[in-house]
Amino acid sequence: MISPKLQKIWYGGDYNPDQWSEEIWDEDMRLMQLAHVDAVSVPVFSWTHLQPREDQYCFDWLDRVLDKLAAAGVYTCLATSTAAQPAWMSRRFADVLRTDITGVQRKHGGRTNFCPNSPNYRHYSRELASRLAQRYANHPTLVAWHIANEYGSHCYCERCAKAFRDWLKVRYGSLDALNAAWNMAFWSHTLTAWEEIDTPTLNGERNNMPYLLDYERFQTESVLACYRNEYDAIKQYTPEVLITTNLMGHFKPLNYYAWAPYLDVISWDSYPTPNQAPSEVAFTHELMRGLRDGQPFMLLEQTPSQVNWMPRNQLRRPGVMRLLSYQAVAHGADTVMFFQFRRARGGPEKMHGSIVDHAGHEHTRVFREVQALGAELQQLGDALVDGRQQASVALLFDWENWWAIDLSVGPSVDLDYIASCKAYYAAFWQANIPVDVVRPDADLSSYQMVVAPMLYMLRPGVAANLSEFVARGGTLVVGSFSGIVDEHDLATQDGYPGELRPVLGIWVEEHDPLLEGQQVPVRSEPWGRLTGNYQASVMCDLLHLEGAQGRAWYDGEFYAGMPAITENAWGKGRALYVAAEMDARLLSDLLLTLCDQHDIAPCLAAPAGVEVTQRSKEGVQVTMLLNHGKQEAVVPLDAEYRDLLSGEPVQGNLKLAPCDVRILQRL
Amino acid sequence: MISPKLQKIWYGGDYNPDQWSEEIWDEDMRLMQLAHVDAVSVPVFSWTHLQPREDQYCFDWLDRVLDKLAAAGVYTCLATSTAAQPAWMSRRFADVLRTDITGVQRKHGGRTNFCPNSPNYRHYSRELASRLAQRYANHPTLVAWHIANEYGSHCYCERCAKAFRDWLKVRYGSLDALNAAWNMAFWSHTLTAWEEIDTPTLNGERNNMPYLLDYERFQTESVLACYRNEYDAIKQYTPEVLITTNLMGHFKPLNYYAWAPYLDVISWDSYPTPNQAPSEVAFTHELMRGLRDGQPFMLLEQTPSQVNWMPRNQLRRPGVMRLLSYQAVAHGADTVMFFQFRRARGGPEKMHGSIVDHAGHEHTRVFREVQALGAELQQLGDALVDGRQQASVALLFDWENWWAIDLSVGPSVDLDYIASCKAYYAAFWQANIPVDVVRPDADLSSYQMVVAPMLYMLRPGVAANLSEFVARGGTLVVGSFSGIVDEHDLATQDGYPGELRPVLGIWVEEHDPLLEGQQVPVRSEPWGRLTGNYQASVMCDLLHLEGAQGRAWYDGEFYAGMPAITENAWGKGRALYVAAEMDARLLSDLLLTLCDQHDIAPCLAAPAGVEVTQRSKEGVQVTMLLNHGKQEAVVPLDAEYRDLLSGEPVQGNLKLAPCDVRILQRL
Amino acid sequence: MISPKLQKIWYGGDYNPDQWSEEIWDEDMRLMQLAHVDAVSVPVFSWTHLQPREDQYCFDWLDRVLDKLAAAGVYTCLATSTAAQPAWMSRRFADVLRTDITGVQRKHGGRTNFCPNSPNYRHYSRELASRLAQRYANHPTLVAWHIANEYGSHCYCERCAKAFRDWLKVRYGSLDALNAAWNMAFWSHTLTAWEEIDTPTLNGERNNMPYLLDYERFQTESVLACYRNEYDAIKQYTPEVLITTNLMGHFKPLNYYAWAPYLDVISWDSYPTPNQAPSEVAFTHELMRGLRDGQPFMLLEQTPSQVNWMPRNQLRRPGVMRLLSYQAVAHGADTVMFFQFRRARGGPEKMHGSIVDHAGHEHTRVFREVQALGAELQQLGDALVDGRQQASVALLFDWENWWAIDLSVGPSVDLDYIASCKAYYAAFWQANIPVDVVRPDADLSSYQMVVAPMLYMLRPGVAANLSEFVARGGTLVVGSFSGIVDEHDLATQDGYPGELRPVLGIWVEEHDPLLEGQQVPVRSEPWGRLTGNYQASVMCDLLHLEGAQGRAWYDGEFYAGMPAITENAWGKGRALYVAAEMDARLLSDLLLTLCDQHDIAPCLAAPAGVEVTQRSKEGVQVTMLLNHGKQEAVVPLDAEYRDLLSGEPVQGNLKLAPCDVRILQRL
Repeated sequence: MISPKLQKIWYGGDYNPDQWSEEIWDEDMRLMQLAHVDAVSVPVFSWTHLQPREDQYCFDWLDRVLDKLAAAGVYTCLATSTAAQPAWMSRRFADVLRTDITGVQRKHGGRTNFCPNSPNYRHYSRELASRLAQRYANHPTLVAWHIANEYGSHCYCERCAKAFRDWLKVRYGSLDALNAAWNMAFWSHTLTAWEEIDTPTLNGERNNMPYLLDYERFQTESVLACYRNEYDAIKQYTPEVLITTNLMGHFKPLNYYAWAPYLDVISWDSYPTPNQAPSEVAFTHELMRGLRDGQPFMLLEQTPSQVNWMPRNQLRRPGVMRLLSYQAVAHGADTVMFFQFRRARGGPEKMHGSIVDHAGHEHTRVFREVQALGAELQQLGDALVDGRQQASVALLFDWENWWAIDLSVGPSVDLDYIASCKAYYAAFWQANIPVDVVRPDADLSSYQMVVAPMLYMLRPGVAANLSEFVARGGTLVVGSFSGIVDEHDLATQDGYPGELRPVLGIWVEEHDPLLEGQQVPVRSEPWGRLTGNYQASVMCDLLHLEGAQGRAWYDGEFYAGMPAITENAWGKGRALYVAAEMDARLLSDLLLTLCDQHDIAPCLAAPAGVEVTQRSKEGVQVTMLLNHGKQEAVVPLDAEYRDLLSGEPVQGNLKLAPCDVRILQRL
Repeated sequence: MISPKLQKIWYGGDYNPDQWSEEIWDEDMRLMQLAHVDAVSVPVFSWTHLQPREDQYCFDWLDRVLDKLAAAGVYTCLATSTAAQPAWMSRRFADVLRTDITGVQRKHGGRTNFCPNSPNYRHYSRELASRLAQRYANHPTLVAWHIANEYGSHCYCERCAKAFRDWLKVRYGSLDALNAAWNMAFWSHTLTAWEEIDTPTLNGERNNMPYLLDYERFQTESVLACYRNEYDAIKQYTPEVLITTNLMGHFKPLNYYAWAPYLDVISWDSYPTPNQAPSEVAFTHELMRGLRDGQPFMLLEQTPSQVNWMPRNQLRRPGVMRLLSYQAVAHGADTVMFFQFRRARGGPEKMHGSIVDHAGHEHTRVFREVQALGAELQQLGDALVDGRQQASVALLFDWENWWAIDLSVGPSVDLDYIASCKAYYAAFWQANIPVDVVRPDADLSSYQMVVAPMLYMLRPGVAANLSEFVARGGTLVVGSFSGIVDEHDLATQDGYPGELRPVLGIWVEEHDPLLEGQQVPVRSEPWGRLTGNYQASVMCDLLHLEGAQGRAWYDGEFYAGMPAITENAWGKGRALYVAAEMDARLLSDLLLTLCDQHDIAPCLAAPAGVEVTQRSKEGVQVTMLLNHGKQEAVVPLDAEYRDLLSGEPVQGNLKLAPCDVRILQRL
Repeated sequence: MISPKLQKIWYGGDYNPDQWSEEIWDEDMRLMQLAHVDAVSVPVFSWTHLQPREDQYCFDWLDRVLDKLAAAGVYTCLATSTAAQPAWMSRRFADVLRTDITGVQRKHGGRTNFCPNSPNYRHYSRELASRLAQRYANHPTLVAWHIANEYGSHCYCERCAKAFRDWLKVRYGSLDALNAAWNMAFWSHTLTAWEEIDTPTLNGERNNMPYLLDYERFQTESVLACYRNEYDAIKQYTPEVLITTNLMGHFKPLNYYAWAPYLDVISWDSYPTPNQAPSEVAFTHELMRGLRDGQPFMLLEQTPSQVNWMPRNQLRRPGVMRLLSYQAVAHGADTVMFFQFRRARGGPEKMHGSIVDHAGHEHTRVFREVQALGAELQQLGDALVDGRQQASVALLFDWENWWAIDLSVGPSVDLDYIASCKAYYAAFWQANIPVDVVRPDADLSSYQMVVAPMLYMLRPGVAANLSEFVARGGTLVVGSFSGIVDEHDLATQDGYPGELRPVLGIWVEEHDPLLEGQQVPVRSEPWGRLTGNYQASVMCDLLHLEGAQGRAWYDGEFYAGMPAITENAWGKGRALYVAAEMDARLLSDLLLTLCDQHDIAPCLAAPAGVEVTQRSKEGVQVTMLLNHGKQEAVVPLDAEYRDLLSGEPVQGNLKLAPCDVRILQRL
């Protein structure tokens, strides 16, 4: 439970009172109560208001805001406001503004526009966090801390260069070790002094993958250090209050696996595109939930209606906001919060939807939908809070692997790690089989099946982890283009897939990238659900069996007859290799065959488009049904349930209108 | 009349004798006379020739050129040559070269490559203009002044930053006022010192719309100050001679409305693309003519054959140059001039068409067409000169509104202000109903109908101006996405369309941007010409009636049944709202219905593709017919006319070949 | 013969032992012998290994490598390793790193990342070459020198600016002459001091074509000076050993015609795209062979399997590597070499194919194919070495013309010089008619037919060379958009095609660029193979006959009836003009008609897709047949031959499987 003060699914959003005159604040309180808002993030961007000068802090206005919130029964996720430093700070201290990838220092403006290794930024952000914590430690509204906002920008300044060299000295110990790890003999790039290492700006070295990978790791840690700097300051005053910062799903610049240990609770901002497949949204919830071993997370931002930064910011259709809110809950969210409460009059996000629109009143479609959902969440109480999902299937995801695939020059620009992960995930999602998304070195002992799409980089211990999982009886499915490099992007010398070669019982000799739009037929003899003809795309691995048996074969090109799917018995388990990106039908037929063989069954049989998930706590299981389809769906229930929203018992054929959601507890 | 010395439609173009040896000048005089050229712009780019060193001026060569022109009977639009400063000046004075949007100072080269706030540029350009004016004030060839050339480049240097801060101090008085106007509390951007304001280079603040809008305003004024600097110098010597600079239609970097008061006569350069709709060309002529309340303008540049800067510079087909020349005259041009007289041997415009081609003689298709048109314009004399168009319909256009729409992040990249203006205009053009294009705060008392496409920004007084127009009996048509922000891009708090909400009798609750290629059906019950099914595109405003009545309704999406066109009675008039970008047929049916109701009739009924305009002076009306179609067209005349080119009387069915033009005076 | 030590087609590739531990070297020797490798380029990128500090050189490791190679019977093309300077050098000397076109100095990294006018780069690269030459002059493995690698990057630094000014002073003598040649009066760019000339960075002058052309010439010479600097040093020690550097086909930044005199033997790197037309590959071989008057060249790099830098790096299908290797030999290669021997573990080229793959052994498809070809080349011995092709047709190619066309602003972005050259070439290639690609000022006396596609720029003497060729009886075919400018990109004043107007007997009045996708019909009355209807594209020249006769005419647009192909008798020969880019069938019908009239016949009649070439020496002719088609092809032989690979006699109908190659010597 995030806070004992608020034992329900939190409901609210970002609140920016300092953009408004104080007269409006009372109206805000009225509207919050009307909308059943009980939690707000405040003050997300107010550093200049809180500290208008180097030597002056002003908290009185915030005192008044928090007191009003307290009076209105609204709790606060207290934000530290450090994502955008004051203009006076950018101007006063040369080290504060970051240098972008072009090598040019930014001017003041925007947000996350600071160098993460800036001493002055570190000093003043810690100071502000510390003062806020000291002042509001015992404020009745305080239920959580929210540090900065959507961290992410990298810096390439001279100061970062120096810090990077220090980081490398610790990591490698000697230049010789670094030269070896980075394969610097290539193009005679061998370093003879640490000072020869600079930042990888666009006018610098952009073709040295190990170097670029280490720079990403270094920046991830540098930005994290800014977060931890505030975290440590706050913990001194409020050791019991959970601290977070809002993440952004599969956001590439930061390896969130490095961050997760320092977030007391994961929170994230979910902004799917219009018409995005619901399985993709679900995948990202799994990824975020997986950061802290399945612990429930906070949906800290979503839009009630539309965003402003897409090319065409379509309105969420009636019912869609509710559907997507419950989808987050269905996958582990214990809060439903919006960006933002009241729509800004000016600035880049002026066109971003909000609970309260520019018109300023409650008589809008959006407000009414928000209000109705708020009432439902009150009705639900703590029925779902702290509930956990249980999965027999794990899908591996790794930021560093993603970076490395995208940095690789060749073999194909069509290799898309995220798309591949989502394709494997979708096969399970469509069958309503729960999946956890976990890191490759996670403890896999609770799973029966593990899927590793495009695991190009095998970091130390990963192959052993997977091999042991198989040896103990698990089923491992490895995607194409796996086992190519180590953590420094150095290719294996043991034949692809390198350390996975024994467990998979195959040797991949060559990779054949397909031309644009090209597909290669694949055929399978009947095996479980797998049979007949399929299509491979993107790139075909050409492999030889070394103990494994073929389950499907290429049926075209000069490698017709070569295996396209293999299965290898290993210890008490088995390991399969899928040698190309495959069409959705093949993935579904293959993965559900494996599920059948493990007796891994859906939460509940449901027609296509109806998502079913389960969360349970203290032995009580709550089942959620969400109709993502455009038509009414009928779900035959397997028992008698109580509908937690209506309070009524339900059984037999349950009808769900499009966008409708049911939350059922088995009687 | 531009000059009493030359009481006909001027004919000629840019002349650059200093690119040629003096032997060629005499041949030029022969060819000018052959082509009936009687006016040239000279010397457009000759600063280094006129001032080869800081302390040396050379006018003797220009004396000889002007004397030869005088002898050949050619008048001069004397140019000040200040659009491209000499290389020595760029090198000698650090303040002269401009800094581009990347924040990097340009090297010497190109044109309009000076900082508009450069003291040295200002000093030397004024000095040159002054000396030219003093020297040639009484030269017999002088008929007009042409300052610099195609102004437009913006600067982002430190000097501009300082000047911008000074400009802001005057505009806002205090930082508090500026912080409020710019909504700087957003992302805590609140300024605490003027020095925190810099120029909006690409490494700077590009997300603060009020700031960016003010920078555009400031640069428009800075560049205008360069023009006015020369203007004032020249006026001292030749107070009677009109001064201009060549504009470029809907050219985005400069708000020409701020310039118009300082141009004694509007001149502009018309370069339509091949196959550009003739209504689009006409729209731009109306826009230019509207800058000075309908006063006739100068067509200062067009190409006789082809340009060089388009991707594929198709030749103008035979007859097209004549057709487009007369189209300019039909919409108010009192000159027909070309870029340029003799084609340059080298440089970026080497491939740009000219009256005299590289081959250097008159035996070309292009020369013959130019020569024939020259003879016709001599024949026409002053029949059209000073003639004015009369329109009952005004279409509003506003540069700042355009800037603001394009700066807005969201709701849709498909919002296209220029395209929307042209779409409304085209409906009238196709029916040959005269339209003036005017600014939103123009005096509207002479119009019966006013159309305001996509009037996103309501600057102070505009809503009152439009409301009063309606109250006095006018018909106002407002396009979608109107009434959203004030002049600082701050959203209205009164419900869209803000100050226009009363007169329109509607409230727009939401905007639904359509996905790429998406359309939404619209249906109308019969009302005038309006009936049946149409299509909305780009974005649909979802609105509620507050006194208005629906005239058409959405017929799809979740807002099916909501009004898509509304009409509201207000005072003696009425105001309509068109809630989306609509297909051309709907705009035509709607607008012509309104014209019918006002008895606004075409100049002359003519088949599709035949443009008809009228210019009149001293009670005499001249009607021009232009066949833009690919087939012969037959126009039934409503009376007997005299054909001013043939001198013959015409009546009954008048046949026009493709590209043909008739200029008729009613007998 | 490149070296008397190795009198066969050299076989091998780039070898980079310093990227590997010494234990691997012995395995490399074993694998080289297994693959029949007898020549390697070493050490291509090893500067830091050879000179780890300013004052320290280390050759002992290279000694050991060369001794091992000698023991294994492998010869070396000794490389100077100067394409990538050590990091310490970049850091120590401010002049070494180059400044790119943005005006920003590069950081260390990549390759060819030095300023070609850097004194320190020049000093140290010469010193290294000199020491290598001194040390290994008499090493038994030495068979050739390979300086640096794939030269090409340009620099825009202050030092280059100064060197450019010095270069211009020599070229033009005076500023007046330069102002005239560069037409600087345009836009008043007239220079008044040499110091006003800077480098053409992106923030500088990019619209002055003569200036940009001269900067390309200057950079070509600057980079060449780096090569010559090492060349001269090496020649002192090994005057008999041929020196080269690897070129890159039609590589735009360097005018290889300026380089060819200083390459003792041409070598180049051939990397066709998958599915590239074999005629395009052949064209580039002809271009490279033509650099030194048909002297056999070195294929210094190709991939055995796939590259890494294309978007999708498809594998070469079985047999394709052999086919393309023999195609190079068929067009004049005396070596077949690969990049590279052993695949790098890390770095940007990690995914580039190699003889020995990451797996490190010989049991791969690629190794087996390489090994089999090695055996064949041993079998062939010196049968083809030093053999020359004989051609009656020459096709003109000119780098400066290419630069000038691409720099021109207008008339059409679709003008594509390389595509036009390849289109004309393909017509001959499909008919197996040998073609030499030569420079426009080459000695043409041995040819019967000369084709000059898109000869926009006529440098001094070119028109006379072509006119004399015709006068002496030759047939000249000139493509559209020819004879427009001189070597300074100044347009002719004599009517296009300028100096070619007399010999062609035409005057081109106008150019009509076609809109995207537009074509114009062309019709021809029967003349040889030419008859019926064709299509013109890209741009149509509108021309008048001045003595020539029409052979085909436009059949559309306003110029229907104007000549599209003309033929003019001149002296003992004739000159034809092709007034637009024409479809492949027209080019084939026209050019083969002209061949028929000259009795220019194919090497051997063969079905479509079968390439036939001949190389001869000392009166013995070897015929090569290559089946590029997807089906088996049957070639009726005209006599009895011996198959040099099988040793068997062949006659009658010869069958070639897809990708198969036969090398035949007439009995």
